Amino acid sequence: MAAAATAAWAQRLAGVRGLLLDVSGVLYDGGDGGGTPIPGSPEAVARIKQSGLKLRFCTNESQKSREKFVGLLQRLGFDISVDEVTAPAPAACQVLKQRGLQPYLLVHDDVRSEFDKMDTSNPNCVVIADAGEGFSYQNLNEAFRVLVSLENPVLLSLGKGRYYKETDGLMLDVGPYMKALEYACDVQAEVVGKPAPEFFQAALKEMGTEAHETIMIGDDIVNDVGGAQRCGMRALQVRTGKFRPCDERHPEVKADGYVNDLAEAVDLILQYANK
Amino acid sequence: MAAAATAAWAQRLAGVRGLLLDVSGVLYDGGDGGGTPIPGSPEAVARIKQSGLKLRFCTNESQKSREKFVGLLQRLGFDISVDEVTAPAPAACQVLKQRGLQPYLLVHDDVRSEFDKMDTSNPNCVVIADAGEGFSYQNLNEAFRVLVSLENPVLLSLGKGRYYKETDGLMLDVGPYMKALEYACDVQAEVVGKPAPEFFQAALKEMGTEAHETIMIGDDIVNDVGGAQRCGMRALQVRTGKFRPCDERHPEVKADGYVNDLAEAVDLILQYANK
Repeated sequence: MAAAATAAWAQRLAGVRGLLLDVSGVLYDGGDGGGTPIPGSPEAVARIKQSGLKLRFCTNESQKSREKFVGLLQRLGFDISVDEVTAPAPAACQVLKQRGLQPYLLVHDDVRSEFDKMDTSNPNCVVIADAGEGFSYQNLNEAFRVLVSLENPVLLSLGKGRYYKETDGLMLDVGPYMKALEYACDVQAEVVGKPAPEFFQAALKEMGTEAHETIMIGDDIVNDVGGAQRCGMRALQVRTGKFRPCDERHPEVKADGYVNDLAEAVDLILQYANK
Repeated sequence: MAAAATAAWAQRLAGVRGLLLDVSGVLYDGGDGGGTPIPGSPEAVARIKQSGLKLRFCTNESQKSREKFVGLLQRLGFDISVDEVTAPAPAACQVLKQRGLQPYLLVHDDVRSEFDKMDTSNPNCVVIADAGEGFSYQNLNEAFRVLVSLENPVLLSLGKGRYYKETDGLMLDVGPYMKALEYACDVQAEVVGKPAPEFFQAALKEMGTEAHETIMIGDDIVNDVGGAQRCGMRALQVRTGKFRPCDERHPEVKADGYVNDLAEAVDLILQYANK
């Protein structure tokens, strides 16, 4: 690497002590049979753990419970456990409890267990997550009818991503369906998950690092990179997952660096973070 | 009626020579078995025809072809024929032809015949209509993939209504799904149908009246009433169909009058239009 590039990376990565890793599109691409790891990512996670740097997984995955999601990643070769994951479903449960809300759940069956302790009779709000095939006309209409019947409708959305990448192509995420309900009911959703600052702050607290010494690595220029930067973190975008070349010319968000994949990000961090 | 109210209606309705009637929520409420006529509406249509006033039906119905739609209304007791109906699917076909566009059709099977002459191979745009149960995750995702693959994505939406009323409750219309695709692909849909001015103007031309001598009657405060008023027409809102009391306090749109149903509107028009 040229001296100028070396100096630039040394400056960008100085003082990094903790890494927040997005999961889908960074560790693996989902798809039939569970998906496939992105080459080099299992080894990159192992190297971070060996290095002594702090590490936490910060995901908007809302189609599976943390148990199922972590089990899948372990089968794909990742060293990861449930208590290392910050995910939106448990965060939403906290919000529901604090505000005494009883949700109608427009969610995938595989994440329903995260809401086991919630009272879903007589719903006075709607929780929407990445329901995948569960986004049938009938289910969305049922959620709409709940919201439109409420004097003060409350819509909690587990993330607001537009789409994500699976092995056979791009897949609509929860965001477009959140927008559909917002428009149908003239309501503004409250987002639980990235890019909500409360969500990043919870992840930082769980990891035990300060924002200025933490770097986020994700494939979503708005929700990962922009969201983390607004919380005072640095952020890298990987050119895997949903990355598209136009992201590097995004009109509002500029990453602290663009890397080919997680393996390259970890190479650079291990080389420059403590220089 | 008190003298002041009489004078107000006489002023509001002076010089009306033509009526544009919305259909769903004004003539009938859809539902299982085709739906049910709104009491008094079949007779009201007959009375307009006997009066010598000009009449045209201006609908955003996009779930059925005009043939199927008119056949249903005839079975419900309405005096209506296909050539009296202005509907968005034929208008969309004109736009597609003029611009040489080949659509991916996210529409209900019952309206597909309106697009029979369109080349749908290698789509370079998406046409979205009220697909009802056809709004599956898979179908919306396919439309999304078409749009996101285009350098200059074009999305034509047959209306942008939020919801309509069927006999067993409110149903999501095309608008929320249009918003979902707009958000997913960062594109602005072009609306064909109410409230697009071109659509109202086509209906006026087909009826043969000027805007200032025409009154629109609908149950949608924004798309019927607001849309017609922006074209220089007067407009009444009926308290049937999707009408909700808060519509009479809408922050942006005020109807020229609110009536209980089409029958009352026709009573008033026949009494005051030529005074």
